[in-house]
Amino acid sequence: MDLLRIPSISADSRFKEDVKKTAESIADHLNSIGMSKVEIFPTEGHPIVYGEKIISEDKPTVMIYGHYDVQPPDPLDLWDNPPFEPIIKKTEAHPQGAIFARGSCDDKGQVFMHIKAIEILNSMGELPCNVKFLIEGEEEIGSRNLETFVKNHRDLLTSDIILVSDTSIVSNDCPSITVGLRGLSYLEVEVVGPNRDLHSGVYGGAVANPVNVLCQMIASLHDENGKVTVKGFYDKVEELSAEYRNEMNKRPFSYENYCKDLEINATRGENGYTVIEQVSIRPTLDVNGIWGGYIGEGAKTVLPSKAFAKISMRLVPHQISSEITELFKAHFEAIAPECVKVKVMPHHGGEAAVVSTESIGYAAASKAMEEAFGKKPIPTREGGSIPIVAMFKKILGTDTILMGFGLDSDAIHSPNEHYGIFNYLKGIDTIPRFHQYFAEMNEGKV
Amino acid sequence: MDLLRIPSISADSRFKEDVKKTAESIADHLNSIGMSKVEIFPTEGHPIVYGEKIISEDKPTVMIYGHYDVQPPDPLDLWDNPPFEPIIKKTEAHPQGAIFARGSCDDKGQVFMHIKAIEILNSMGELPCNVKFLIEGEEEIGSRNLETFVKNHRDLLTSDIILVSDTSIVSNDCPSITVGLRGLSYLEVEVVGPNRDLHSGVYGGAVANPVNVLCQMIASLHDENGKVTVKGFYDKVEELSAEYRNEMNKRPFSYENYCKDLEINATRGENGYTVIEQVSIRPTLDVNGIWGGYIGEGAKTVLPSKAFAKISMRLVPHQISSEITELFKAHFEAIAPECVKVKVMPHHGGEAAVVSTESIGYAAASKAMEEAFGKKPIPTREGGSIPIVAMFKKILGTDTILMGFGLDSDAIHSPNEHYGIFNYLKGIDTIPRFHQYFAEMNEGKV
Repeated sequence: MDLLRIPSISADSRFKEDVKKTAESIADHLNSIGMSKVEIFPTEGHPIVYGEKIISEDKPTVMIYGHYDVQPPDPLDLWDNPPFEPIIKKTEAHPQGAIFARGSCDDKGQVFMHIKAIEILNSMGELPCNVKFLIEGEEEIGSRNLETFVKNHRDLLTSDIILVSDTSIVSNDCPSITVGLRGLSYLEVEVVGPNRDLHSGVYGGAVANPVNVLCQMIASLHDENGKVTVKGFYDKVEELSAEYRNEMNKRPFSYENYCKDLEINATRGENGYTVIEQVSIRPTLDVNGIWGGYIGEGAKTVLPSKAFAKISMRLVPHQISSEITELFKAHFEAIAPECVKVKVMPHHGGEAAVVSTESIGYAAASKAMEEAFGKKPIPTREGGSIPIVAMFKKILGTDTILMGFGLDSDAIHSPNEHYGIFNYLKGIDTIPRFHQYFAEMNEGKV
Repeated sequence: MDLLRIPSISADSRFKEDVKKTAESIADHLNSIGMSKVEIFPTEGHPIVYGEKIISEDKPTVMIYGHYDVQPPDPLDLWDNPPFEPIIKKTEAHPQGAIFARGSCDDKGQVFMHIKAIEILNSMGELPCNVKFLIEGEEEIGSRNLETFVKNHRDLLTSDIILVSDTSIVSNDCPSITVGLRGLSYLEVEVVGPNRDLHSGVYGGAVANPVNVLCQMIASLHDENGKVTVKGFYDKVEELSAEYRNEMNKRPFSYENYCKDLEINATRGENGYTVIEQVSIRPTLDVNGIWGGYIGEGAKTVLPSKAFAKISMRLVPHQISSEITELFKAHFEAIAPECVKVKVMPHHGGEAAVVSTESIGYAAASKAMEEAFGKKPIPTREGGSIPIVAMFKKILGTDTILMGFGLDSDAIHSPNEHYGIFNYLKGIDTIPRFHQYFAEMNEGKV
């Protein structure tokens, strides 16, 4: 709860000191649970917290990656309770109660499960595996300094498996392990018409309105089948077999409840794909923010000078984030009409990733979850992006197991984010078992 | 200059007291120039200032209408000098200097010309005409309480002509009188998707993004020929003869300079019409403001719950504002896809108006301007809306002469609004002549 109280908002430079305080708090916890070495590494941005306890070279090493920074909480007026004043409330989805606060699920609550799990293992005797903690403070802003840090500390970060809890299970009755993540390409666009705001009566009808033009350009980014029209967008997209898709679609899913939960009358996506497929194995394009002209109280008859949007695309194997960013930029510039000028500014991106279900890491996670939940977990491909998974593989050669305990309804990135106490405790129950089985299954292999 | 210092922003409730102070200042001026009766009438909104000097029933009565409220100044960071600290600067367009301040041209500077003109006439002897001043404080927010006031004070406001200076001349070398104004229909729309902001990875691809949908709906409001697609929009639009259009297009206009002034490579409007026609005799649709999702610093991968826009249409005879508003509402609701809900909220509107060049009022204005400028003014149809013109005709039966002295480049409704000293003094030169000729031309008629 104390950890949740610190507003570690990495995107907003006004909270720089709070982010630093949070790093120090994490480091304190790592020290208190028995890590033999704890260090806060400064970066060009927010610090990275590292902790380790190496028992023996004979043991396999598990590295836990997480992040202590959080998403901005806005819009503030939609929170029932202040985002940095954690409160436990019972809900229909969480009869045992849930902790409501920004970061409770994404990712402080899930990081803390690992801290508590290691504390328990440590108190019970020798850790089954060597343990390393890598907890960064910039995940929500693209982990911009992490890759450099990893490149410069390969030896320090050597491990047999990386364990990440920053995803969700299908439901509390249906445990799952994430075996696929989408990639991300994020850009900001600016459309400029006249060199100043104009009176829409004096100039309207002859001077192209950059807001109208931006809307037309954005509208053209999808065709009538819900496909993204950026030239070259689908060239490298992996088409999956009918068999694979059938398996995926066996996952418990109620279209009615899905719509009811969101209070929408219907979904809308790429024709020819189910909802489960649309949010996991297909690439997408969304406008995350748009603004231009007068947006204050009342009416103002202005023909604005500029219009802006933040646009992101979720990617699937084998799209490459930097390539897609370039394709979007080229496409957007090409479709701009003569009457405006456009600027396209790329933000951070990340690659899609798929994890093998044949690995020891997966088997250990599967067994641990089965014991804790009383039910075997199913493998799922998620819609979100965790770019560091591909980055860790590329630079360290290490695979990642995405064993998260949240629920989609936890409203991460939204107001009233929360994390179920059931889930939090289940994670603490599961994680020590993972370490135990990972060690057992690796015997003879180290 | 003192008048310009008071921030009489009618749209923003935080400036209510400043608006009131401005009304009092206007009333003081009317008293000091010799009005025999001056009264500040409260309304449900901002007050209306009235002043009169009736010499004799035998004289015709000229009523001067204007407004003392101003547009909001934002965006503030684009002003070279603070909007409510008037400063005189020389520019290329105004070698004699111009007064830079919000309201300098629209409309305080132009109202003040009439105050000074009457002061001069009064000091020279008997006024040629009876004079009434009707200066309101809500023009920028649709004159919402004026119609009620006019209805309740018909006798008080009886006059032979209404004189308004709230428009522009073609250039300082080409005086003109406005004989046509466009109407206005203004609405706010809201598109709602899911009941909360969502994580665009978890839900993107299946849940319709209300920003994307709003863009598609707005894009569909124009066809490939630049025509507005709202069902029924053009039904009552007056098509003008080739002869009339040819006359209109003789007005001095340089496409190259027009584009150069705005720093655009090309204009864009309804196919088949010239720029002059597009901004005067054709109806239009513009988005005045749009917003939705995350628009702050950096990146946030949100699939927003809502998207909003302020949309207005400029109308021409014989479109009726309330009808067009209804047509837009019906159309927008009809084109909304199943995956979202839309709300359409009408704001103030106003009718188009056309003034006859055959009237005594026009003849008096034409002669007065010809004397002051040394060149006969041409009649022009403007793109902006002054809804009270049609309202005065409907309720009082009185015609309006739109004899304004601003320039299109004065940047009204924009940052760095200004008013040329040449124009300001020319107005004070012209207006007394108008009163003189209006009286002469009406002799025997009153």
